[in-house]
Amino acid sequence: MNEKALFLINYGLYIVGSKKDNLINAQISNTAFQITDNPNTIAISINKSNYTHEFIEISKLFTISIIAKTAPLSLIGNFGFKSGRNIDKFEKISHLLTPNGLPVVLEHTLGYIECRVINSLDVFTHTLYIGQVIDADIFKKEEPMTYAYYHEIKNAQAPKSTPIHEESKIRKKYVCKVCGWVYDPEVGDPDGGIKPGTEFEDIPDTWVCPVCGAAKRDFELLK
Amino acid sequence: MNEKALFLINYGLYIVGSKKDNLINAQISNTAFQITDNPNTIAISINKSNYTHEFIEISKLFTISIIAKTAPLSLIGNFGFKSGRNIDKFEKISHLLTPNGLPVVLEHTLGYIECRVINSLDVFTHTLYIGQVIDADIFKKEEPMTYAYYHEIKNAQAPKSTPIHEESKIRKKYVCKVCGWVYDPEVGDPDGGIKPGTEFEDIPDTWVCPVCGAAKRDFELLK
Repeated sequence: MNEKALFLINYGLYIVGSKKDNLINAQISNTAFQITDNPNTIAISINKSNYTHEFIEISKLFTISIIAKTAPLSLIGNFGFKSGRNIDKFEKISHLLTPNGLPVVLEHTLGYIECRVINSLDVFTHTLYIGQVIDADIFKKEEPMTYAYYHEIKNAQAPKSTPIHEESKIRKKYVCKVCGWVYDPEVGDPDGGIKPGTEFEDIPDTWVCPVCGAAKRDFELLK
Repeated sequence: MNEKALFLINYGLYIVGSKKDNLINAQISNTAFQITDNPNTIAISINKSNYTHEFIEISKLFTISIIAKTAPLSLIGNFGFKSGRNIDKFEKISHLLTPNGLPVVLEHTLGYIECRVINSLDVFTHTLYIGQVIDADIFKKEEPMTYAYYHEIKNAQAPKSTPIHEESKIRKKYVCKVCGWVYDPEVGDPDGGIKPGTEFEDIPDTWVCPVCGAAKRDFELLK
């Protein structure tokens, strides 16, 4: 079996929002797809450990904000690997609340779809929610972000010209899984208090990605 | 509500195959999404009236052949709006059978995923199947087809330069919803027995699209 075939499946990139009492939260999701058109229903898949999952379980409502292709990585980082349990993801993000009190992101988004959960399916680590569309709108006509394009950007972030080292002297670089920023030990992250020459392993766990704020654990070895 | 927001959701384009006893069949689908990665599960959505639905209900198995971006529209047409109840879709299509006897398309595809149905959900006109991945392979590394790109091709098929008529003399053109080929009454379809000057309405119902073989009812007015 070549599991890499699974990477050939195409996805968009969305911000799925929900509410719990007076709290709102949202997260990045790449699984949103229309199932039927009479009535209009949408399926989304949410990890059970996510804060948004708890919100949807309670409110039975969710919104899908459709990210523009031109959106900066910082927007994806804000709603990505961070948890709404620790921060208010909407603190600095322009948004509206639907009449049902659900958040819709207004920055770098093209429109939204609001759904009421009518059914769900337990799939191991995730819950697949079926939502009936109760509202939808378009803010502007541009191309939506795709997961494939997001990965292209990630690759584009990797420095194209790197110093040539002898094989034994090559230091390990690490890439942020959220936004694609590459940590180079030769350069360090002086603005973040990490001196040039610091190996990634020696960076404190409290350090975060200077571009998107992802945690150190969200980095992986650049191959 | 602006339902057009639903069009901003991104899809790939796949050929979903299944079997029933010794019969095989397959259809075009744009909904295939990975739900979990431990174990690997995939969700697909299939219209209950489709022949493939009947096959999956019985065998509880399906394959997803991943279409290459460079695939010709005739491939999509062959597995698209035609029904396997009337024709053998695999008659002229190079394919392999998995050890479970399921069809995988080898022409203009990049790889495939084979799944065993472990759960399903009734959603009005469709059934959402959850399949656990039992096999997968990649044939070649190229870009997969996306539904958005397929639509771009469709638009590209429309003739860019058209004769100028007086408003009252403009004849109605029709576009094939499967492959994007445009029927122009000025030109007709001489190879298909339709003389120049024949209005679309006057074409016999037995006529099919000269590019992809779609039925006359699969055409819509070009606006």
